[in-house]
Amino acid sequence: MNSRPISEIPTQIRSICAIQGVRAAGTRDGKFGLSLIEATGDAAAVFTKNIVIAEPVRLMRERIQQGKLFGIVVNSGCANVLTGERGYQDALFMTECAADAMQIDAKEVGVASTGVIGRYLDMPLITRQCKSLTGALGNTPACEHAAADAILTTDLFQKHALVQADGFSIGGICKGSGMIAPNMGTMLAFLYTDAKIPADQLKTALQSAVDESFNMVVVDGDTSTNDATFLTATGEAGRVDSALFQEALSSCCKSLARQIAIDGEGASKLITVHVQDAKNVQDARHAAWTIASSPLVKTAVYGSDPNWGRIIAAAGRSGCEFDPNAISCWIGNGEEFAIVCTKGVISQDLSPAKALMNGKEVVILLDLAEGTGCATAWGCDLTEGYIDINGRYTT
Amino acid sequence: MNSRPISEIPTQIRSICAIQGVRAAGTRDGKFGLSLIEATGDAAAVFTKNIVIAEPVRLMRERIQQGKLFGIVVNSGCANVLTGERGYQDALFMTECAADAMQIDAKEVGVASTGVIGRYLDMPLITRQCKSLTGALGNTPACEHAAADAILTTDLFQKHALVQADGFSIGGICKGSGMIAPNMGTMLAFLYTDAKIPADQLKTALQSAVDESFNMVVVDGDTSTNDATFLTATGEAGRVDSALFQEALSSCCKSLARQIAIDGEGASKLITVHVQDAKNVQDARHAAWTIASSPLVKTAVYGSDPNWGRIIAAAGRSGCEFDPNAISCWIGNGEEFAIVCTKGVISQDLSPAKALMNGKEVVILLDLAEGTGCATAWGCDLTEGYIDINGRYTT
Repeated sequence: MNSRPISEIPTQIRSICAIQGVRAAGTRDGKFGLSLIEATGDAAAVFTKNIVIAEPVRLMRERIQQGKLFGIVVNSGCANVLTGERGYQDALFMTECAADAMQIDAKEVGVASTGVIGRYLDMPLITRQCKSLTGALGNTPACEHAAADAILTTDLFQKHALVQADGFSIGGICKGSGMIAPNMGTMLAFLYTDAKIPADQLKTALQSAVDESFNMVVVDGDTSTNDATFLTATGEAGRVDSALFQEALSSCCKSLARQIAIDGEGASKLITVHVQDAKNVQDARHAAWTIASSPLVKTAVYGSDPNWGRIIAAAGRSGCEFDPNAISCWIGNGEEFAIVCTKGVISQDLSPAKALMNGKEVVILLDLAEGTGCATAWGCDLTEGYIDINGRYTT
Repeated sequence: MNSRPISEIPTQIRSICAIQGVRAAGTRDGKFGLSLIEATGDAAAVFTKNIVIAEPVRLMRERIQQGKLFGIVVNSGCANVLTGERGYQDALFMTECAADAMQIDAKEVGVASTGVIGRYLDMPLITRQCKSLTGALGNTPACEHAAADAILTTDLFQKHALVQADGFSIGGICKGSGMIAPNMGTMLAFLYTDAKIPADQLKTALQSAVDESFNMVVVDGDTSTNDATFLTATGEAGRVDSALFQEALSSCCKSLARQIAIDGEGASKLITVHVQDAKNVQDARHAAWTIASSPLVKTAVYGSDPNWGRIIAAAGRSGCEFDPNAISCWIGNGEEFAIVCTKGVISQDLSPAKALMNGKEVVILLDLAEGTGCATAWGCDLTEGYIDINGRYTT
């Protein structure tokens, strides 16, 4: 477990505790972390589509129906998956310990877990950790960073986002490094806003934001058993314009999604894939996601090779419709781009594209010349580091 | 390009030229190989589902409708993809050169290509190679091995299979190392039988055999633009029982599929995944294929870790139905197995499973306890070798 000294996080980085009504705390014993986040409001959540689900996910799929949360408890180091009825009871008990520490009703507490699959939670440790955080909740940068740190597993850095719109704000923290990290699990995100929005609208807005952010990040294509995103609205800033809220929420989620891709296991480069002029948004998403997930595209980016053939072949198997003779493709670093294929005709000189691939970010832009659909996916290159992390871990 | 001295292939290995009526020849100039296979009979083929298709695939999708072939020409080193009308004319011209060399009608010649995407064929070289094989066609082991060698790209060894059933035989050769190899393409297979079977029945039998063999192999999940499997029936052994033929054909294809997985880019171990007691065959195939394709399962096998959590999480995202509390899972080496999960309960001691993972083959057996569907998928581990081949190639 890499140490991640909290003191290294600049105190000007703010996220959830910049939202009125949110207080947080976190603690870590070796690889076992625990965070508490207190915030009362209407709430919604989105969970993994894997049919093998963690016990906290099972519990929360029921509980989130009530449409409100007063707080959330999260542990790292153990995913509480394939642990059956005992695991479910452990998840319930976690909410009770956390409720005691936050002095709120246990029935209004959300719970999430991340870590090794197939082991039982260390309930004495979790009880001790909850107790140690009693009275520690606060809205200072230190509290927020402690909470953001305690949820990490193989992540190399904390992930924070804060979007300030006209009259309201949205802040979030998340963790995630592999879709399933080495023998561990999970992408988890915890989002807060001071906007006043009822739970059913929150749910719709969250699903939409997740579809174009977290669902467009791919590190290795393995869907976790624990993935969960929670959004709580404290309402302290009052009612807001729903279109503006959707835009701000999507922006916040995309910032966090991008941070997950940057922190992909073994990654040396962020890959951003923009697909435009697809037949529709769904086609654009399929193409962008498939390109970002292709092992051959990922290894080519690692080797700084503008291998457009792999990009187009990946789009071709994605299920989206296009005419290979009409497409155009550019490769760049986010600021400059070089064209590698113009309406199906290959650029003879690929050296300008190659020169733009040596930095920390590679951007692929693909125009499918079919319609007006566009989408963005984020991924990372595939390096020996991924093999090392996932092939040489010790359990 | 690794040298693959033909003399190293034991002469007792027979495949297509053991079929009555089949003659073959092959030649190689550096990384550019060319094979001719002559055999007259009813014929069927199955092609890639990628919408970006090679020009020879475009040509053959039309031509195979006639239901017969007199011969096939295959080149390696250039995939003839994204080459437009010029590429289509080049593919046509290849069949004419090959027809001259084999002294048959060009309209009855099949064609396939494999190699780098986005380059034009070197037609003067292909013309010379066809001419050099005039008169070289034969049914000796040396002829067969020359043909099997000339179609290889990054493959490390030739792939042959021969199934001898009661009264008839089926033989095949194939190539394939990545679904798309480094900047190259393709899984190609050429199958021959002396059974007498009309084209429409061949087509049905071939699709069924491909579905449970080549479509169940995964090296990296990238579908090539050139994938093609051809089956020609010379008919010299007369009519045969169709159920027996289907069984023999599937067996032949599975042998070749397994060889592709063993020769996966950078692979150190073959992974065989058997899924049984699934709700139906489709569910079993989805689960087996998804497990074999999971980067986390592949890296765990590389590290000889019996990480059943990754296996079950992969099954859980495959789209198949099951109850995680009812499943059982074994890991073994093909001869011995150790149970890692019994009806949802985890084995406490995983060391017997770990001890069985150190060889050249790891077999995963998953019982979904839902029905009677079963399926097998083949894959390979994910090692630094894959990154090296695909990230550090030179184009």
